[in-house]
Amino acid sequence: MSSLRFEIDSRAGSGGRVGTLRLPHGDVETPAFMPVGTYGTVKGLTPRQLRGAGVQMLLSNIYHLAQRPGAETVARLGGIHRFMGWDGPVLTDSGGFQAFSLADHVKIDEEGALFRSPIDGARMLLTAESVVDLEVRLGVDVGMAFDVCVADPGDRRSAADGAARTLRWARRTRAAMSDGSPTSIFAIQQGGLFEDLRRENAAALVDLDFPGYAVGGLSVGEGREDTMRVAEAAVAMLPDAKPRYMMGMGTPLDLVELCGWGYDLFDCVLPTRNGRNGSVFTGGGTLSIRNACHADFDGPLEDGCDCEACIGFSRGYLHHLAKRGEMLGAILCSLHNVRFYQRLMSEIRAALSADLYDGFRRGFRARYEEGSGGTDG
Amino acid sequence: MSSLRFEIDSRAGSGGRVGTLRLPHGDVETPAFMPVGTYGTVKGLTPRQLRGAGVQMLLSNIYHLAQRPGAETVARLGGIHRFMGWDGPVLTDSGGFQAFSLADHVKIDEEGALFRSPIDGARMLLTAESVVDLEVRLGVDVGMAFDVCVADPGDRRSAADGAARTLRWARRTRAAMSDGSPTSIFAIQQGGLFEDLRRENAAALVDLDFPGYAVGGLSVGEGREDTMRVAEAAVAMLPDAKPRYMMGMGTPLDLVELCGWGYDLFDCVLPTRNGRNGSVFTGGGTLSIRNACHADFDGPLEDGCDCEACIGFSRGYLHHLAKRGEMLGAILCSLHNVRFYQRLMSEIRAALSADLYDGFRRGFRARYEEGSGGTDG
Repeated sequence: MSSLRFEIDSRAGSGGRVGTLRLPHGDVETPAFMPVGTYGTVKGLTPRQLRGAGVQMLLSNIYHLAQRPGAETVARLGGIHRFMGWDGPVLTDSGGFQAFSLADHVKIDEEGALFRSPIDGARMLLTAESVVDLEVRLGVDVGMAFDVCVADPGDRRSAADGAARTLRWARRTRAAMSDGSPTSIFAIQQGGLFEDLRRENAAALVDLDFPGYAVGGLSVGEGREDTMRVAEAAVAMLPDAKPRYMMGMGTPLDLVELCGWGYDLFDCVLPTRNGRNGSVFTGGGTLSIRNACHADFDGPLEDGCDCEACIGFSRGYLHHLAKRGEMLGAILCSLHNVRFYQRLMSEIRAALSADLYDGFRRGFRARYEEGSGGTDG
Repeated sequence: MSSLRFEIDSRAGSGGRVGTLRLPHGDVETPAFMPVGTYGTVKGLTPRQLRGAGVQMLLSNIYHLAQRPGAETVARLGGIHRFMGWDGPVLTDSGGFQAFSLADHVKIDEEGALFRSPIDGARMLLTAESVVDLEVRLGVDVGMAFDVCVADPGDRRSAADGAARTLRWARRTRAAMSDGSPTSIFAIQQGGLFEDLRRENAAALVDLDFPGYAVGGLSVGEGREDTMRVAEAAVAMLPDAKPRYMMGMGTPLDLVELCGWGYDLFDCVLPTRNGRNGSVFTGGGTLSIRNACHADFDGPLEDGCDCEACIGFSRGYLHHLAKRGEMLGAILCSLHNVRFYQRLMSEIRAALSADLYDGFRRGFRARYEEGSGGTDG
C-alpha cells in the first residue's frame, strides 16, 4: 500500500471537497496550493518565510534537479528535504512537461525522452522507470509518473497518440513502484482537449490503481474556454476517493473555479514570478507596485493581510525598492503573493466546508475582476 | 543636551573599551558593527532577519535617500524607521563621501556641494545646514555632519584645505543643531594622512562639543599601512568619553585591530556585497561558495555558527544556489556574513571585557590569515 492517506472531511454541493492529505513529511489541508521550487528553492524565499506564510507543501522538479546539481549530489546531501532545508511534504513533477517545453532539445520515443543539454551537450534519458527511481532516491513524498504532454492539444491524432503512450508509460511506472515506499506516485491523465480521449485515458489509469491522479496537458497555449471546459469535465473522470491534482494552473480565478469542481492540489509559478516583477495579488485584483500612484502611499499592499510585507512595510517603501531594483522588493512582494495564495486557499476551504461555495466564488470573482479591470493574473 | 548617552562599561589595557550607546530607538552594545542599508534596505535581508542575526543598529545614507525617493516621501511615509520597517537605531552618513566618490557630478564650494544627477540632470544642494535638516526630518538617531573628503589624502595642501573646510562646516552644523533633538549629530575628523593636521582638526572639533566623533577620509585608496597608522593615531585625538566611529572600514582583521585601539562604531558593505557574490566569512578566513570543492559538502558554511544559513543548509546546497544564480543563495550567504560580523563583535566585546584582548587579537588573526592564505576581505 501507498504511504499516502487521503481523508475527505467535508463536501460542498458544487462537487468541491475539503480534506487532509497525510504524507510522510506531514499533513496537508486540501485544497492546497504548492509554491514552485523548480531548482530546490522557491525563488527569493527561505523555508522559514514559506512556513510563516502558511505553506504546507512545495513542488519541485525531478528533471531540473537531475540536471543540476544531479540526483547523486542531492542524495549525498541527504535527499530533497535536507537539501532544501524544507521538512514538509514535497511533490516533484516528472519532466514530462519539460520534454514538451524544451522540445528542440529532446528526442522522444517509446523508451523515453532523451534530453540534450543546450549548455554543454550532456545527455540524460528519462524513462518511466528512471523517473520513479529518481523520485524514490530523492525521497519525495509525491512523485509524478512520466507522461507525454503534446504540443497541440487540439490535434486529435497527436492528443490520442500522446494519451496512449502516457498510458503505456503509466503501466511501466506502476510496475516500477514498490508497495510501502515512502514515495507515492500519481498518474497523469492526458488526452488534449478531447473529452472522450480523456475519459478513456482516465479509465485505464484508474484501473492501475495509483494513489492519486493529476490532469496534465492543459494551459499549454489553448484558449481559456477550452481549458476550463476540459478541466471541469476531467475532474469527474478521476476517482472521488483519491487526491486530484490540476497541474500548473493557478490564477486566483482559476483556483476558485477548480476548487469548486473538486480538485485538491495546485501549483503555479505566478505568486513568485509576479512578485519579482512587482505585480501583487490582492482580493481586489492585481496591482503593479512600480506604478507611480503608490510612491507616497503609507498603507499596506492589502488591507487586512497578515503577511510580513503588509505588517511591516508601506506600498510607498515597496514602490521605492522596486524602482531601485532592490532585492528586498522582489522578496517582500513574493512573500505577500505566497501568503495571498495561502489565505485564498484557506478561504476556499472554509467556504467549501460551510457549503457556501457558490456565493463565495461569485463574490470573490466580482471583487477581483472589478479591481483588475476584468483581467486576471 | 543630546538625546544620546554613552556609557563605558569596561576597559582593556590595549585602549579598547566596551560600552552601551543609548539612543532614542534603543541601546547598542559597543563596539558595534552597522550593516549598510544605503537606500533604506540592507540588500536582500528583511529587518526580521537582521534582528535574528543580532544586528542592533543600521547605517543608511541621507544623500541617497534625499535623491530617491526624496526626503519628503520618506517623511510622509513616517520617517526613516517606519519607512524601512526597522525600529532600532539608525545612523545616516551625510553625503560627504558621495561628494568625493561622485566628484564628476558635483561642484563643491564654501556654501556646500551641488550634486547633478547623472540620470536626469536634477540638482541637489547639500550644505551643513540642509544635512542637519534632512537628518532631523527623517528622524535618524545619529546623523553625520557634512564634511569634505579629499581625493588624495596624501597631498598635504588638499588635506589641509579639506580639514579646514570640514571644520568651518562643523561650526555651521553645530549652530544648526538644536538641543533636545532626538537626532544626535557626530562631527567627522579629516586631515588626510597627516597626523598633525588630524590633531589640529580634532582639537577644534572637540571644542565644539559634539555628542560623538568619527574618523573620515580613510580607506579611500591609500595603502593599508598608512590607513592603520593614521587610524591608530587618530583615535587618541577624540574624546575618551564619547563614542568614536571609524567610517567605512570593516574587514574582520580591520575590526579586530580598531576595536583594540578604542573605536566604538563601524560600518562596511562587505558582509552583504561579498554575500551576494558567494564570498563567505568564517573564523578560518573567507571561502568562495562557488568553488567546486563545496558541491557535495554536507556541512555548514561554518562549524558552530548559529545563523539561519548554517543551521538549515549545507555548503553543497548553497553552492548549487550560487551556481544557478538563485536569489536565495545571495540571501543566505549575506545572512551568514551579517551574523558572522555580529558574532565577531560579540567576541571582541567579551575579550575586551575580560582584558584578554591581545591574545584574542593574535589568535583571531592567526586563524583567519591561515585559512585565507594571508589575504583578507
